[in-house]
Amino acid sequence: MDLLQENIRTYGKIHDNRIIQVDSFLNHQLDIKLFNEMGKEFQRRFANKNITKILTIETSGIAIASIASQYFGYVPVVFAKKHAGLNMSEDVYSAQVFSYTKNQEYTIKVSKNFLSPTDTILIIDDFLASGAALMGLLDLLKQSGSKVAGIGIAIEKGFQGGRQLIEEHGIQLESLAIIEKIENGQVYFHSPKSSQCS
Amino acid sequence: MDLLQENIRTYGKIHDNRIIQVDSFLNHQLDIKLFNEMGKEFQRRFANKNITKILTIETSGIAIASIASQYFGYVPVVFAKKHAGLNMSEDVYSAQVFSYTKNQEYTIKVSKNFLSPTDTILIIDDFLASGAALMGLLDLLKQSGSKVAGIGIAIEKGFQGGRQLIEEHGIQLESLAIIEKIENGQVYFHSPKSSQCS
Repeated sequence: MDLLQENIRTYGKIHDNRIIQVDSFLNHQLDIKLFNEMGKEFQRRFANKNITKILTIETSGIAIASIASQYFGYVPVVFAKKHAGLNMSEDVYSAQVFSYTKNQEYTIKVSKNFLSPTDTILIIDDFLASGAALMGLLDLLKQSGSKVAGIGIAIEKGFQGGRQLIEEHGIQLESLAIIEKIENGQVYFHSPKSSQCS
Repeated sequence: MDLLQENIRTYGKIHDNRIIQVDSFLNHQLDIKLFNEMGKEFQRRFANKNITKILTIETSGIAIASIASQYFGYVPVVFAKKHAGLNMSEDVYSAQVFSYTKNQEYTIKVSKNFLSPTDTILIIDDFLASGAALMGLLDLLKQSGSKVAGIGIAIEKGFQGGRQLIEEHGIQLESLAIIEKIENGQVYFHSPKSSQCS
């Protein structure tokens, strides 16, 4: 998706040829106009999938998923919690996820009330890197018996192996921008048409 | 706002005549159609305020603020972080907040890049109870020199003193549903027209 790639090129800050900071438009300050374009594109890629609910994970996936819902008939958005408060029901599906950014394992939880075998779920998140968070979400969905329609990602770090993990499960994975490599402070995107860097 | 009150009455779960759980539509599963109606109502109440940015706080404010932005000309949404990761810049405004729900103090942070003296900020959050989180956000805005246009809240627990704290600062506070009391498992709303319970 050209608009997202442009934003990454223009506003993304690269650290150590590995980390790309997109906090000015994607995960701290949020560009809601851009999120609407992303929502439309997700809809295009997952049209006719009869999605009944969108599942995401706190924190940065929430805004993207909520705006996207508007292009899927305003289906409910459910977010898995990383930091469950005292108010959370005990009756939850839960899974363990290892975070490479924070270098620790954490538990994600979703109330059993909000995922059911009659649901067809689209997972949406901001980043795909190792795929650990997505595997946790897929685990929750397996427990609930919900059908997985696919996974929509804003930015995929194509060099960190997450895609392979997802595709082994036969799940449709759509990333709006796939970073193939970061070299000398430059971001190279995967171009689906030619499989060449652009 | 009638639609929100209806949702609270129909789907809210009351515990100990004190806690109202609204996780089926407001802060775990999200009703995006309802959020759009809330966004329209916030716009009506803060029209002509020349808002340049919306500030909220993770987690539950993010979706409400993001949907509302669409009714304020798609202004950027910035969320204060409670759980800053390794990727966060060091150059932040920060404030201490005491959480009564989790019974602990935490630090909220916003990157200095995203709040400036030229900004006119609308704060949006899901709940107002003691007002501790809002006082933290106002502290961040004071540090940044941004102008505060007002505060928009989904559900105010009118019996917990937060409103007084905000109004002492001369700030316009608009809550879409004000709970006056919870008694015998019943929610009583403040009705602005008659000041009677309904």
